[in-house]
Amino acid sequence: MKLFGGIESGGTKFVCMIGDGPDHLLKEERFPTTLPHETIDRVAGFFLPYAESGELAAVGIASFGPLDLNPESPTYGYITTTPKAGWSQVNLHGEIQRRLHVPVALDTDVNAAAFGEQYWIPENRFLDPFLYLTVGTGIGVGVIVNGSPLHGLIHAEAGHFALPHNWQKDPFPGVCPYHGDCLEGLASGVAMSKRWGQSPECLPDSHPAWDLESDYIAFALADLIYAYSPKRIILGGGVSQHPGFHQTVRRKVNQFMNGYVQSSLLSDRIDEYILPPALGHRSGGLGAIAMASLMQPAGEVLADQSH
Amino acid sequence: MKLFGGIESGGTKFVCMIGDGPDHLLKEERFPTTLPHETIDRVAGFFLPYAESGELAAVGIASFGPLDLNPESPTYGYITTTPKAGWSQVNLHGEIQRRLHVPVALDTDVNAAAFGEQYWIPENRFLDPFLYLTVGTGIGVGVIVNGSPLHGLIHAEAGHFALPHNWQKDPFPGVCPYHGDCLEGLASGVAMSKRWGQSPECLPDSHPAWDLESDYIAFALADLIYAYSPKRIILGGGVSQHPGFHQTVRRKVNQFMNGYVQSSLLSDRIDEYILPPALGHRSGGLGAIAMASLMQPAGEVLADQSH
Repeated sequence: MKLFGGIESGGTKFVCMIGDGPDHLLKEERFPTTLPHETIDRVAGFFLPYAESGELAAVGIASFGPLDLNPESPTYGYITTTPKAGWSQVNLHGEIQRRLHVPVALDTDVNAAAFGEQYWIPENRFLDPFLYLTVGTGIGVGVIVNGSPLHGLIHAEAGHFALPHNWQKDPFPGVCPYHGDCLEGLASGVAMSKRWGQSPECLPDSHPAWDLESDYIAFALADLIYAYSPKRIILGGGVSQHPGFHQTVRRKVNQFMNGYVQSSLLSDRIDEYILPPALGHRSGGLGAIAMASLMQPAGEVLADQSH
Repeated sequence: MKLFGGIESGGTKFVCMIGDGPDHLLKEERFPTTLPHETIDRVAGFFLPYAESGELAAVGIASFGPLDLNPESPTYGYITTTPKAGWSQVNLHGEIQRRLHVPVALDTDVNAAAFGEQYWIPENRFLDPFLYLTVGTGIGVGVIVNGSPLHGLIHAEAGHFALPHNWQKDPFPGVCPYHGDCLEGLASGVAMSKRWGQSPECLPDSHPAWDLESDYIAFALADLIYAYSPKRIILGGGVSQHPGFHQTVRRKVNQFMNGYVQSSLLSDRIDEYILPPALGHRSGGLGAIAMASLMQPAGEVLADQSH
């Protein structure tokens, strides 16, 4: 039997899983992100028994970034310029491949999450463009368009959109070290904690934080709809799990767009258009497993390259 | 010899051209957009001699919108909900095909312009994602990504991005009938004319209009870079032709992005990254000719469908 590994590499924790799909996960482990060599040792330790037995066919990585995803770049597979101490210029892809000797697929955590939701959930399978917006500690967007994840110069960084910021209503200057009051600067979990002095999960339903937060996320969703004209958007991440958040945001998206994009999906069926992740918190890891399962064995890749 | 037709269908004028590429245009004609049947009569009149002689192999249309581009929709090829009097629910694609009896390709004016610049200019050919941003009477964005134009639910409408609007600096409420102060509402040629009481081409270099305009367009470009991670952006349209506009906007893009996306294309070679259209005002029409040239003859399409 062939098994595939999925690694979700985050700024605060790593998750490793092995199996061949959402209904067949043999083992899952999560541990804090410490120094690179230490963390990668634990990843290798998790998979090594399956690699040595020959069951592990390939591994996928869903990683925080920014990442170098240009296959022709000498630093392909590196985490590039992260503020996370010790993790700048770490060759994540190369190190995992060197330890496990299996093909390794790599994409951003959010592209992998989009891919996982699209690949494993039959109703999502042919929806293209397909988006995953995560609102958690940070904000990120994964995009599948015209059949493939969006890469390009680097990859989508729509968490850093410049948004309307009403300084009268919200005098908070934002927390993004690059832009101050971009989307992530105003509406990430970190921004909420800093603005209100308590973390989002402690803010009660009646707190004005939630009205403001749903404004920003609805503006972001409207911009994402204008940008990609998606067939479906998955809205995930810890902050989005606040009770009633999806309903409020859906209503405000229609309010802000004001009928400009005419589609019954928006006007009548927006609860089928903006949805929580069907795979829960495993979208990224299961997306990584899907990416791994689509890789050719190393031998075949080499054979193809020799033509 | 095979000839292809290109139609640029705009809210104020139509342009028809025939030939087989930028270096070989036999004839070009422009006329005002009046009522649909009258305008489409003139289009048909332009191409009919070539259709009757059998030289016209196919026609491409680069049209204003919104358009129904879903090939499975009963209203495929219609202009849907335009404020342009008489043009709502006009079956542009069907009418042209009915008159000329040749295969007809259709896309948005901006997708066609992006396609034209990418297809006919060798240096652009393999740059993907590839964007065309037009700043003229209106604002629109064309996107080629993962090998094809972006369509999806409808098509990109990034001209309607919600942007930072500093009401102290710019108390103008915007002109977009749907959103007021979205990108197009604040920064289109129409917005400039209304805000300053004279049309953009009459505003002197020293007028504060240009500082404000370049702010909005630079914010828009930064958002487009975050959204699509493009390999190149063509910045066209009448307003963008103001002397020095490209230079100012390039500088401000780097200023607003503040080094977040690390690429030498942005930091050192932004004049190779954000460029005026190489095809001048013919990007859309020549894009339409490129689209037409890639269509299969009607006979072959029918044969394929019979399998």
